[in-house]
Amino acid sequence: MSVFSVELLCTGTELLLGSVSDTHLAWFGREIFPYGLRISRQTTVPDGAAIRDALLESFGRTDVLIVTGGLGPTTDDITRELVAEILGRRLILHQETLARIEERCRKRGFVFQHRMERQALVPEGATVLPNENGSAPGLSIPPVEGVSWRSPHLFLLPGPPRELQPMASEHVLPFLKDLSSASVKPDCRIYRVAGMGESTVEEKVGMELTKRGDIEVGYCARPNEVDLRLIGTAKVLDEVEPLVLTLLGDCLLSKTGESMEESVVSMLKMRGATVATAESCTGGALANRLTNVPGSSAVFLEGFVTYSNQSKTELLGVPTDLILRHGAVSAEVAVAMAEGARVISAASYALSLTGIAGPDGGGADKQLGTLWIALAATGKETQMWKNILPTDRLTFKQLATQTALEYLRRRMLTGS
Amino acid sequence: MSVFSVELLCTGTELLLGSVSDTHLAWFGREIFPYGLRISRQTTVPDGAAIRDALLESFGRTDVLIVTGGLGPTTDDITRELVAEILGRRLILHQETLARIEERCRKRGFVFQHRMERQALVPEGATVLPNENGSAPGLSIPPVEGVSWRSPHLFLLPGPPRELQPMASEHVLPFLKDLSSASVKPDCRIYRVAGMGESTVEEKVGMELTKRGDIEVGYCARPNEVDLRLIGTAKVLDEVEPLVLTLLGDCLLSKTGESMEESVVSMLKMRGATVATAESCTGGALANRLTNVPGSSAVFLEGFVTYSNQSKTELLGVPTDLILRHGAVSAEVAVAMAEGARVISAASYALSLTGIAGPDGGGADKQLGTLWIALAATGKETQMWKNILPTDRLTFKQLATQTALEYLRRRMLTGS
Repeated sequence: MSVFSVELLCTGTELLLGSVSDTHLAWFGREIFPYGLRISRQTTVPDGAAIRDALLESFGRTDVLIVTGGLGPTTDDITRELVAEILGRRLILHQETLARIEERCRKRGFVFQHRMERQALVPEGATVLPNENGSAPGLSIPPVEGVSWRSPHLFLLPGPPRELQPMASEHVLPFLKDLSSASVKPDCRIYRVAGMGESTVEEKVGMELTKRGDIEVGYCARPNEVDLRLIGTAKVLDEVEPLVLTLLGDCLLSKTGESMEESVVSMLKMRGATVATAESCTGGALANRLTNVPGSSAVFLEGFVTYSNQSKTELLGVPTDLILRHGAVSAEVAVAMAEGARVISAASYALSLTGIAGPDGGGADKQLGTLWIALAATGKETQMWKNILPTDRLTFKQLATQTALEYLRRRMLTGS
Repeated sequence: MSVFSVELLCTGTELLLGSVSDTHLAWFGREIFPYGLRISRQTTVPDGAAIRDALLESFGRTDVLIVTGGLGPTTDDITRELVAEILGRRLILHQETLARIEERCRKRGFVFQHRMERQALVPEGATVLPNENGSAPGLSIPPVEGVSWRSPHLFLLPGPPRELQPMASEHVLPFLKDLSSASVKPDCRIYRVAGMGESTVEEKVGMELTKRGDIEVGYCARPNEVDLRLIGTAKVLDEVEPLVLTLLGDCLLSKTGESMEESVVSMLKMRGATVATAESCTGGALANRLTNVPGSSAVFLEGFVTYSNQSKTELLGVPTDLILRHGAVSAEVAVAMAEGARVISAASYALSLTGIAGPDGGGADKQLGTLWIALAATGKETQMWKNILPTDRLTFKQLATQTALEYLRRRMLTGS
């Protein structure tokens, strides 16, 4: 759909060693979609000569190339120098940038290091993009004219997301928006589905839509969730929406691509209801997910992370002998935790989780990954569920909190 | 250093739209490093014909190519078919895989869909890698002989990390380990540094090491942290370690690349100390980070997520008039929260956080991003710090919890 192509080249040995994960692709992908643009390809290469190969390959293929990383003060940062060399441009010291870097050091109480000066070097013909959140500026370099090969419009941006994102928002995104001449911008709707597998989503909904020919249908499966992604004009997507909603029914988690926690927070808001949490094995992950949602303070009252048995008793009033008789990972303790949290908080709902996240703690009687969830609601009977989630510690937390939120969502939907 | 090269090709329109982030690169990078191997290049392309171009380019460049995604049951999953076409191999229905998929449906109470059968198609000459956590199997395809062009050893793996990782651990990693004939495996040490900028780390430590010529020195800066990465033989790295430790001093967060929370949990363990948390603006993120560490139950007793003012009073005993007089985001309330949590939990330390995470809530008197942290310790005076972190909600939580953990770490180091 784009009339021109945008590629992303991420540089940094740490990305290929796995010390850090790239976030730039997802960020740019989301930001430029509303302009009718997509990243057509993304490449990651280590610091050093591999950057040169990747640059030259992209040069022949794309109209805009965004390069991230390698602009810092240390000797492994050579993107600026490589680009200048390939384009045959001299590097010139940019006095204003140098002054900015010196000023930044002064403000933060750092000593100005001579090596920082490299960050103020700018290839002839480039525009400096000031860095409000770090020292290395970005660079915008228009296509080189009058050579036998073609060069794309280049943006060189710093690697850290908190430096890159504000800079790109101010300088790169407006450029791309202006360049994008697609008159009809496509629309993208993501229907998030819970309780229905990927195949079934395609069988029940996707096939019908694919046959039309005017909608691009995609799927993405995650633990306990499937995204059904429709891309087309707003008119076409509006037209099919009633059908999609009917076919997905109760399994529709959200129709704006919102997360499970966003969906739960907005349902609570609509009902004027509140929630509290009592977590053992998930250690605050459920409260953390709920409070990731802006405005969650209107519905989330308080959370208890009762990791030790003693804290379950002292904070939530779980009777000691209940823990002794049934163990901390049991239906009885989950129920007592949820009911304790509900009464103390006076919230409409209280969710509790108790389980064995691993890697240690499983035993002959309690399997690793065992999880009890209970949901207490004002004036209603407390519900409880057992799950077995034998996986790594972080996935366990993710699945456990996802499942707990889904129980709360279903309960609100059915009004039971 | 590798005698052969390994590339990674990630497929999936959702990756380029930013609906999901790739985790495969970081995972493989970490897993194969101990074999003396690195991923030499990673590419992301959307579902469809772009996969063909990327496959053909990699074919001429690499010895092993790992392709992720596009093996599912839906019509946008075409990796298997494209590879068979390029290699000129027929697709054959693999009965054992088909039976597995049918059995999996039965167990989970799903109806077997005809479209699932595609997942049991296997190119001639390929080995099936069973999927223990999903329906689509992986494929291992040795280089094609007797053609004019060269093909790498191909691994086709499912996209979801929880399906890919167990499969790759069982089938791909052992293959790579065997193939790796480097007799001297390099060692990698990551010294995580807090309280010293990237330039200063290079000035103080890195330059000296780079001069030696037998150590590959790299840097990676993150919010409030810098990684100094040294790659070389174990002998050389052992030799320079005392110097590195001396030069970094108190700014060394960990010398095993462990995270701030891992470092804090192990320091607490060594001291036989315990910790409790009282969180407002971070909503459980601090408890969540601490409990992400396996074995944290030995030191983390309990956490309070006191999001509402009422919960600060009822759960932690923060006087109502203190909140009225100074506001919930104040030194006084932070101190009362930390001291309340410490007394209730009887932990050695209690950390509290109260602030304005945004996007709403800032005002004339209290800037958005304002954060108060307090640290109470048995028998010692409570300390408190003010920070201003004007950023997005999730980064705020990350920076706020990082800063709180660093205060606790420093306090334990200095014994104050």
